[in-house]
Amino acid sequence: MALSKKPVTGMKDILPAEMQIRDYCIGVIKETYGKFGFTSIETPCVENIANLSSKQGGENEKLIFKILKRGEKLNLETAREEADLVDGGLRYDLTVPLARFYANHANELPSPFKALQIGNVWRAERPQKGRYRQFMQCDIDIFGEPSNLAEIELILATTTTLGRLGFQGFQVRINERRILKAMAAYSGFPEESHDTVFIILDKMDKIGPEGVAAELLENGFAKDSVEKYTALFEELAGEQDGLAWMAEKLQGFLDPQVVQNLQEIVESVRSTKASEFTIVFDPALVRGMSYYTGTIFEIAMPQLGISCAGGGRYDKMVGRFTGNDVPACGFSIGFERIILILMESGFQVPGQPKKTAYLIEKGVSGQALCEVIAKAQQTRRDGGQVLVARMNKNKKFQKEQLSKEGYEEFVEFYKDPLK
Amino acid sequence: MALSKKPVTGMKDILPAEMQIRDYCIGVIKETYGKFGFTSIETPCVENIANLSSKQGGENEKLIFKILKRGEKLNLETAREEADLVDGGLRYDLTVPLARFYANHANELPSPFKALQIGNVWRAERPQKGRYRQFMQCDIDIFGEPSNLAEIELILATTTTLGRLGFQGFQVRINERRILKAMAAYSGFPEESHDTVFIILDKMDKIGPEGVAAELLENGFAKDSVEKYTALFEELAGEQDGLAWMAEKLQGFLDPQVVQNLQEIVESVRSTKASEFTIVFDPALVRGMSYYTGTIFEIAMPQLGISCAGGGRYDKMVGRFTGNDVPACGFSIGFERIILILMESGFQVPGQPKKTAYLIEKGVSGQALCEVIAKAQQTRRDGGQVLVARMNKNKKFQKEQLSKEGYEEFVEFYKDPLK
Repeated sequence: MALSKKPVTGMKDILPAEMQIRDYCIGVIKETYGKFGFTSIETPCVENIANLSSKQGGENEKLIFKILKRGEKLNLETAREEADLVDGGLRYDLTVPLARFYANHANELPSPFKALQIGNVWRAERPQKGRYRQFMQCDIDIFGEPSNLAEIELILATTTTLGRLGFQGFQVRINERRILKAMAAYSGFPEESHDTVFIILDKMDKIGPEGVAAELLENGFAKDSVEKYTALFEELAGEQDGLAWMAEKLQGFLDPQVVQNLQEIVESVRSTKASEFTIVFDPALVRGMSYYTGTIFEIAMPQLGISCAGGGRYDKMVGRFTGNDVPACGFSIGFERIILILMESGFQVPGQPKKTAYLIEKGVSGQALCEVIAKAQQTRRDGGQVLVARMNKNKKFQKEQLSKEGYEEFVEFYKDPLK
Repeated sequence: MALSKKPVTGMKDILPAEMQIRDYCIGVIKETYGKFGFTSIETPCVENIANLSSKQGGENEKLIFKILKRGEKLNLETAREEADLVDGGLRYDLTVPLARFYANHANELPSPFKALQIGNVWRAERPQKGRYRQFMQCDIDIFGEPSNLAEIELILATTTTLGRLGFQGFQVRINERRILKAMAAYSGFPEESHDTVFIILDKMDKIGPEGVAAELLENGFAKDSVEKYTALFEELAGEQDGLAWMAEKLQGFLDPQVVQNLQEIVESVRSTKASEFTIVFDPALVRGMSYYTGTIFEIAMPQLGISCAGGGRYDKMVGRFTGNDVPACGFSIGFERIILILMESGFQVPGQPKKTAYLIEKGVSGQALCEVIAKAQQTRRDGGQVLVARMNKNKKFQKEQLSKEGYEEFVEFYKDPLK
């Protein structure tokens, strides 16, 4: 029986040209985040199924690849439900495993602890162009830092990294879960319906303010509340200093400290940033994950119509593992999107060594072969890249293929050197 | 309900100190193999269960982590066997997925194709010290090269890499499946029992020649054959040039080309190697995987009593996917063993930037905070590593922790600069 040549549904093989760009980006990311004091850690790709099903992952919990129990032989006759068969799953993000990691190792880690994780995650999404069921995430997180220094450092580190990868002119959008809640409360939406309101507000980018208003009404919210809510966003759009205006407008609904905190983040980032971008308060920014408790932010590339990074504060997650909450804040780069943009723009990895191919005729062997290899070894020691290969029958095609791989110089070795 | 803090059974979290060494090794490996013209590729961690259960993985096929089908809801009532529930599994090595990759993409790849893979694999082994159910493998493979140039390049690349990681005095042991078979045939073991003979021979390192002879007899093999076999190994041990002696002794059982081929590999490696090691013919080297078809080799570190790399030629695997065989040869470094040895030897990663920690008193905010951050940004631009953190109540303990992380310089910032 012939075996299947294709990767499993929705996952992909990565060819050398893409891997070269990925390796380059990972190098830049690790070096830049390192400068900010982030240290790499890793957790297993497999997590306990209970940890993955704890209502922290929102919709992602429906997309878990589940792994059969090992050990006692599976008994299909007595298995009544999935839980009898399954005890692990592939992680759907790096944040839940990181909180578990921190809970497990806090005694061995400094405070604050600044973590960098680059790793694959898996989600069984409906396969579609550019979306895969295995993809790489690249997260930085700070544990144990309650002040906005965490947000400032996360934003500076992420934007510096994007800058070093050649991105500029992007926009950091920032908001606060507590501002979102205050705006909804001010407009008269009952507290238990806030999450529904936010899910609709999250579509602002796609359907505009009229679309949001229409959908809120369709969902049975009071006309009065919807109008008040819409008016808030309209007025805000005309304000020079939206945060100051907001603090005044929402008096009684919002702790002024929340606004001051956000203002300090925006101003600190503006005055110390190391790359070319803007940072703005965006009252319509929602971010889906239910674990966020304070600041939320993302990075938009308006010219491409996409966001390429997102994060926020989640001060309650470690407590799910230990019973004691620990301040936590993170920022995740959409690694696959970054790679796709670089691939499509024809990005060339800088600083590659000169590539030479030695093509050796079939008959060259023994001492003659040793001499060719010794020459290659010397060039490698001197920093060059040398491919040593047998000459194919179709030498011209072989050279064409190697040219495509970036080989610039070809040296041919024949049994009869006069040939 | 509190969630589980521990990683899943048999898998481990990797802390910053180990990650730093792993990242360093991966960097050296990618750079060194790159010089030899190996290009990185990646396949998904999940493979079709049929590809993983095709009798190529030997014992590893019993250790697969199996993944539940997605899509149509699982129907436990009608499921009669595991195959009704499972369609994927976590890969147990990188070789089977690589053969699938090559079969799938051969048209887009140069010939010969030299691949580098660094990735995790999973085996549900009984948990024990130093052995984990998720571990990293680091493989190089050459497809499309029928001559021993493949073996020579693989051995040179792997030994150069180990040398650059600081290892020396190790021993490359090399053998040939066809020599193994000729020795067994010469001794009179029937062909269908050769695999059993080799499994016993494989214990030579642990139980010595007497142990091997005893176990062969226990398994019911003819005394005559066992004695002839044992004598072969004894005589060989006394020979200066074992390969030449072998070629003569096994006349009629072994194609002289096989020996000549091996001799050329040994001599080429000896005369062109770039690090300090020996290469020897080892007639007792077996290697377990059933897919090997020719040369087999491994690297032993006699002072530690372990082997740290292994590989060989497997010319029949691509044919399982396409119907057409393609010459293939690979060498795999035992990445986790290398890391363990480096960790235990107190290895320090060279070339680290100077690490400075800025500790900021709680009250420092606004303009004053911006100035501290700006200073940190400047130092980072200049190549330094700066951690910016709030000063903890117990500053002494905080500094002690940071010293352990390698921070050498501490700068303190107070609200009242005269403090």
